Amino acid sequence: MGGDNDPIHPHLITLCANRQAGYNTGHMPEQLDSIELELQVGVAKVSKYAVSESGDTLELTERPQGGLSLVLADGQRSGRAAKIISALVARKAIALLAEGVRDGAAARATHDYLRTHRQGQVSAELCIVSLDLVTHTIVISRNSHCPVFILTPEGLRVWDEHSEPIGIHAGVKPVITELPVTPNTWVVAFTDGVLEAGQRFGSAFDIADWVTSHLSCTACGNGYGEQEGVTAASLADAVLARAIELDQKRPQDDMSVVVLALLPLQATDQARRLTVRFPVPPL
Amino acid sequence: MGGDNDPIHPHLITLCANRQAGYNTGHMPEQLDSIELELQVGVAKVSKYAVSESGDTLELTERPQGGLSLVLADGQRSGRAAKIISALVARKAIALLAEGVRDGAAARATHDYLRTHRQGQVSAELCIVSLDLVTHTIVISRNSHCPVFILTPEGLRVWDEHSEPIGIHAGVKPVITELPVTPNTWVVAFTDGVLEAGQRFGSAFDIADWVTSHLSCTACGNGYGEQEGVTAASLADAVLARAIELDQKRPQDDMSVVVLALLPLQATDQARRLTVRFPVPPL
Repeated sequence: MGGDNDPIHPHLITLCANRQAGYNTGHMPEQLDSIELELQVGVAKVSKYAVSESGDTLELTERPQGGLSLVLADGQRSGRAAKIISALVARKAIALLAEGVRDGAAARATHDYLRTHRQGQVSAELCIVSLDLVTHTIVISRNSHCPVFILTPEGLRVWDEHSEPIGIHAGVKPVITELPVTPNTWVVAFTDGVLEAGQRFGSAFDIADWVTSHLSCTACGNGYGEQEGVTAASLADAVLARAIELDQKRPQDDMSVVVLALLPLQATDQARRLTVRFPVPPL
Repeated sequence: MGGDNDPIHPHLITLCANRQAGYNTGHMPEQLDSIELELQVGVAKVSKYAVSESGDTLELTERPQGGLSLVLADGQRSGRAAKIISALVARKAIALLAEGVRDGAAARATHDYLRTHRQGQVSAELCIVSLDLVTHTIVISRNSHCPVFILTPEGLRVWDEHSEPIGIHAGVKPVITELPVTPNTWVVAFTDGVLEAGQRFGSAFDIADWVTSHLSCTACGNGYGEQEGVTAASLADAVLARAIELDQKRPQDDMSVVVLALLPLQATDQARRLTVRFPVPPL
């Protein structure tokens, strides 16, 4: 996967020092091995105000060797033209991932495809978040100026390593990081409509602060993400709602939020569940 | 889409006679046109008891011209071998639908692909449920012996028109039906683990009766599906739970339930939402 599992970022914010032991060295306390985990994914999207179609596309697929991949693509500009590009990009990446192509290769191939198809004239931002059950890691690949937020019991990492969008320059590749499959891991990815929410109105979205306080332990020692009732879906909804609020209820760009979380298993029936909800555009 | 929109089935059960006026003739009461609709999808799946991997695959994609397609594939037998087949089938169909191929052609092509790839030795059942925003219909394509249940304010239709599984015989095609986009429409599709639940224990699953009573109006005149709190997700969960219960908590086959519903819009933010939850298999 290219697995440049770079060290914790300077932006690290530590809230629960008593949960830090050995996280990145693989020496987690033994009792964690016996915790059964649940994968949760939550996605929430809106289009730019007064534009009927979002230029962002989110697709997902089951990985053939086990696990799941989420692809978030943001096409240049907004509306129909952007949608065509982001859909092209997302579907190319998904088709490759569904055939078992590794994430880094899928991102490279999608870049080459877009660049060939559109002669280097059109760019897109691409983020792939996978739960890979072969390597037993979460693999995150970015070709985007939007950072990805990673929250674990030891704190928040703002992964904003520089990367280029796909489609324009030759030889572009993603930046990639891998995370161990560990309870109470949260990955929050989003498009630039969220990143830049509120900027036109003089109140930028401090996502790091906001997500941290949303997930931080009420009684210290519980760690991130064990807060009662917070799910991947509710976090994605809450981030989106805050971004819309900062844009004074008129999103200045397409906004998409993707949250992937690994939490202690609560359901007892071993079922897999998926839901979708969206307003049907009028005729 | 091949649109053989055949008449209401003899199994029709009518609960709310006062809601029947003109449904199939297109002369719905005018006020229905102004109801804003929400698409809801709910999927719930379990694998056969003591088998770690389900032989059923469910994939979804956004349709390039607008809308959404769900593909449910059930591979012959269960476990890993079935999973490989159902994944192959589902991904082929999804890749075609994502490129804008019409549903009937996607099903035919997927059949030809499986038959060529496995030399006619392996079969699969395939069901495609699409919300098509170009034709403004729900399109359902079946190559399965499992019926699809369609509930509208005028009653229940058990769509069990004969169809062949894909992969074996030459020239197989799906049976297809189209439904208008109308409030309080429910489509319930499932694999044979649900259809045959309880049979080994002498208590077959009367799905028609069960779904009808689950969705029927408490105060007559409200019609199906306006029952407080019932969502596509909760209905899928409830059907699966009942099937598991009838198999005495040990599913005798892979079980998958897919529910698509068109309901009056309740959310006010125009957001699109997707969630996934599943247990992470231990290392």
